Amino acid sequence: MTRFAGSFMPWRAIHVSHPIYTDRAAPVHKEHRMIRSKVCTLDGDDIYIRGHDLLDLTEERDYVDVFCLQAFGEFPSPPMKRMVNALLVSVADHGLTPSVMAARFTLYGSPEAMQGAVAAGLLGGGDRLLGTISTAAEMLQAAARGLEEWTDDDIAHAAAKLVTQYRESKKRIPGIGHMIHVNGDPRSTRMFNIAKSCGYYGNYCKLAIAVAEEASRQTGRFMPLNAPGAKAGIILDMGLPPSAGRAFNLLGRTGGLLAHVLEEQQEPIAADAWKMLRDAAAQADGA
Amino acid sequence: MTRFAGSFMPWRAIHVSHPIYTDRAAPVHKEHRMIRSKVCTLDGDDIYIRGHDLLDLTEERDYVDVFCLQAFGEFPSPPMKRMVNALLVSVADHGLTPSVMAARFTLYGSPEAMQGAVAAGLLGGGDRLLGTISTAAEMLQAAARGLEEWTDDDIAHAAAKLVTQYRESKKRIPGIGHMIHVNGDPRSTRMFNIAKSCGYYGNYCKLAIAVAEEASRQTGRFMPLNAPGAKAGIILDMGLPPSAGRAFNLLGRTGGLLAHVLEEQQEPIAADAWKMLRDAAAQADGA
Amino acid sequence: MTRFAGSFMPWRAIHVSHPIYTDRAAPVHKEHRMIRSKVCTLDGDDIYIRGHDLLDLTEERDYVDVFCLQAFGEFPSPPMKRMVNALLVSVADHGLTPSVMAARFTLYGSPEAMQGAVAAGLLGGGDRLLGTISTAAEMLQAAARGLEEWTDDDIAHAAAKLVTQYRESKKRIPGIGHMIHVNGDPRSTRMFNIAKSCGYYGNYCKLAIAVAEEASRQTGRFMPLNAPGAKAGIILDMGLPPSAGRAFNLLGRTGGLLAHVLEEQQEPIAADAWKMLRDAAAQADGA
Amino acid sequence: MTRFAGSFMPWRAIHVSHPIYTDRAAPVHKEHRMIRSKVCTLDGDDIYIRGHDLLDLTEERDYVDVFCLQAFGEFPSPPMKRMVNALLVSVADHGLTPSVMAARFTLYGSPEAMQGAVAAGLLGGGDRLLGTISTAAEMLQAAARGLEEWTDDDIAHAAAKLVTQYRESKKRIPGIGHMIHVNGDPRSTRMFNIAKSCGYYGNYCKLAIAVAEEASRQTGRFMPLNAPGAKAGIILDMGLPPSAGRAFNLLGRTGGLLAHVLEEQQEPIAADAWKMLRDAAAQADGA
Repeated sequence: MTRFAGSFMPWRAIHVSHPIYTDRAAPVHKEHRMIRSKVCTLDGDDIYIRGHDLLDLTEERDYVDVFCLQAFGEFPSPPMKRMVNALLVSVADHGLTPSVMAARFTLYGSPEAMQGAVAAGLLGGGDRLLGTISTAAEMLQAAARGLEEWTDDDIAHAAAKLVTQYRESKKRIPGIGHMIHVNGDPRSTRMFNIAKSCGYYGNYCKLAIAVAEEASRQTGRFMPLNAPGAKAGIILDMGLPPSAGRAFNLLGRTGGLLAHVLEEQQEPIAADAWKMLRDAAAQADGA
Repeated sequence: MTRFAGSFMPWRAIHVSHPIYTDRAAPVHKEHRMIRSKVCTLDGDDIYIRGHDLLDLTEERDYVDVFCLQAFGEFPSPPMKRMVNALLVSVADHGLTPSVMAARFTLYGSPEAMQGAVAAGLLGGGDRLLGTISTAAEMLQAAARGLEEWTDDDIAHAAAKLVTQYRESKKRIPGIGHMIHVNGDPRSTRMFNIAKSCGYYGNYCKLAIAVAEEASRQTGRFMPLNAPGAKAGIILDMGLPPSAGRAFNLLGRTGGLLAHVLEEQQEPIAADAWKMLRDAAAQADGA
Repeated sequence: MTRFAGSFMPWRAIHVSHPIYTDRAAPVHKEHRMIRSKVCTLDGDDIYIRGHDLLDLTEERDYVDVFCLQAFGEFPSPPMKRMVNALLVSVADHGLTPSVMAARFTLYGSPEAMQGAVAAGLLGGGDRLLGTISTAAEMLQAAARGLEEWTDDDIAHAAAKLVTQYRESKKRIPGIGHMIHVNGDPRSTRMFNIAKSCGYYGNYCKLAIAVAEEASRQTGRFMPLNAPGAKAGIILDMGLPPSAGRAFNLLGRTGGLLAHVLEEQQEPIAADAWKMLRDAAAQADGA
Repeated sequence: MTRFAGSFMPWRAIHVSHPIYTDRAAPVHKEHRMIRSKVCTLDGDDIYIRGHDLLDLTEERDYVDVFCLQAFGEFPSPPMKRMVNALLVSVADHGLTPSVMAARFTLYGSPEAMQGAVAAGLLGGGDRLLGTISTAAEMLQAAARGLEEWTDDDIAHAAAKLVTQYRESKKRIPGIGHMIHVNGDPRSTRMFNIAKSCGYYGNYCKLAIAVAEEASRQTGRFMPLNAPGAKAGIILDMGLPPSAGRAFNLLGRTGGLLAHVLEEQQEPIAADAWKMLRDAAAQADGA
């Protein structure tokens, strides 16, 4: 298994850390630290991404190569590239979602600013719709803390402990359950198949499955691992941090949002959708 | 030359059209028209992009294939794919730009919502920074209206007419001029080279060059065609509408913004950048 | 008439100016100019708005007083304050608009980030929905250039010239026409009544009315001045720049968007609205 | 004490509730429920906010009256109105904050879309910068659960339990601690003074103070209650939900963001700020 990013980028702390208390002894007027980014540097008018000239990249590399270079620090291996493409494509579009409608409604009001429509669409890519993958990955990471051997028994034990904790605190377990596919989510199966062929089906994937099985056992109902849950295991087995999952989802969906925005410019539906909702509200108010 | 999108998608009207006057005879309470999108349809829980099952696309296609399918209605030919990749990569990142700083500052205030940081970064991708390509393409399109033969003379004549009009109305010509590369913009050359090898160096590219030459002639100063200007010609020669140019730029930059956001989560610079600006303001106020 | 802002703040150039051509003689590496804002300054931990201590303002002034101080440089006179309040209240909410639905859909996907929902709602406040006031004011400003006497004849002449120009270039005249109130827009009448009682019904209001009358004359159909058109005249008669109109509209609508977001948190409708649109799309696809 | 909203609007559930598990027995294709909003209804072209005609409100009420009506369901009493104004004004501006710089940088790239600049500024109003008030209020609400008598002893006991829990889980307590005002935050004092004069200094304010005192005791360092912490107590004593605190902050800051955007249109600093950061990065890269 080619663990990506594992060796060269210690994902120390994904969320901005807050000190527990403000320390009154702390110097308030410290010197400016270095303001720099390793992602991209400039030399006069030349642009370098992680040390590679952007003009050369433009001729020699495709977009996913360059995205991996930007985000994770090196070009992807062939299996890594296949996996990243699959993660991006799998969320490319899901129809007239709340995100897409937010983008189309925004374009209706602001036809001069296509970028605002795309931004409005992305703003709905949070904890409920596109961010579940990261929440699930954070949960798996926390559950795995302390695991050293990753035997099947260890994994089952960690899963049981996690499910019990979530049930006791009446919290929803992210990444499991599905409204329609009560016998299993075909997307999870497909993603795992791709992960297996790329070498990214590892301990975290097994832990994710164990969590779903344990939840089914404890509740007495079949609780399938859904697509965000499966992907949460995959990105951890790729050596990536939880927030990379949300990053893939946001990038993957951007293409779809742009396609809807381009379509809305030519064949608008926002006005009719607005009218439909307005009529429904009028009917409700009159009731 | 493989003109993309030319045959199957008549880009009739990119900007939302406004009727000149509201017609009081118009029926106000018409029936809902169809609310539908050709980009993506659902069948139960199955998702189809332009008729292709999303799960199959996930296994078989890469992200740029699927983006072209979504946005333009068909899979790209190999040269089209190379050109789209080049357009996306060429804007992947330009360092600590206003967009990147907006994203990093937003993450500072809202660490819980990575999507908000990316959205804030995209919001700066407008008329001045990422949208010039579209403005330039609209200008070229307008200048070409009426051209039938596209002989060298016709092109030179259209360019002369355009430059004269812009100079008379004291408007800036989008897509020409460069602060540093006063002897020519190497990015334009590179993009044209790729366009030539892909078969997208056509009449609009020639028109863009003619505009820059004419502007240099009329002003007596060398006015190079810059990268947005060159790309404006290319996307028109690809058979795409002006707004597709802005779409490429927004998608291309999204990857870079995500990379900066992931870096900011680990190695933040927003607080130091804020302090630097605050100190500069304090110094200015004290002056 | 108390012309606000007229004397103390020369609204020289509302839109960022672009040089016609980039001058290659321009020094590229100039020194940093002063980075400062007159709106707000800090002194250690103390905050001053236009020189007034924020803590004192908190005790002594209301929100509209402080907004005028921030935006226009001085506290409002009583009529100015009444007029500003009327401008803000008049756009406070218009039901389940595209903006409101964008906000509610965004909250659905990102319940963790209320600020993203409000931002998504504001993003639709552009050229078509909340920005018409500014477009109309820019048009009136341009039409008035050259007017010195503002006699009734001068105003009628400027209006005739403007309408003729717009009709020749087949552009929509912003601020006139109404779908429903074919005999006149009661909102315009109300706003003008308030403007009269506050002393802000002046030459620009008259010009706005003249434009509507002239358009009706030239088209042979009754073209009422609508609310954005009336307000465009009012803000210019207040001595404010066109973009102040869009600023009032964005601030006024923010309160409404927040109210909808708070309601959506308690009594959500986004999921049902989504389902309604999905069902409509399914029906259209099946047709 | 006039508890606002207490009687007429049961703030049952501010955060969107998630079922613990998806129930496979749940009907997937239920009928559309009513799509309606109590905030605003339309009758033909007439707009009603909570049953009040918007045109009448425009003439008779000021903006804060209408905002309270929209958001909380009734006009504010005089003390309520004073308190709301104080909450809004107190966050009106804090200088060249990350939010303000995000707005200014966004306007630089997209001068055509002022709404995008304001939206970018609001997007930074999250958990760290403008949202602490809500996080602190949620914490106080949770700590108060089970309290019946609210005697001084009960309050002290609840505060001790809360601080112990937070310290054990190494979480930061929102609303306490201040970098500069190590002897107490004058803003908290001022806000409490206004709250006392308005009748909103009640049990939650006392609990907030008790938490700060207990934290100081347990850590052996003085931990003042800061402004967001004080306001968290106040809004709960007003009978409002935690998210109302973030709503006040977002609305209050919108005015300031608009003032900065209007200033940036006239006297831009974004280009210079960008250059300063770029130079700092170049220096850091060269080191």
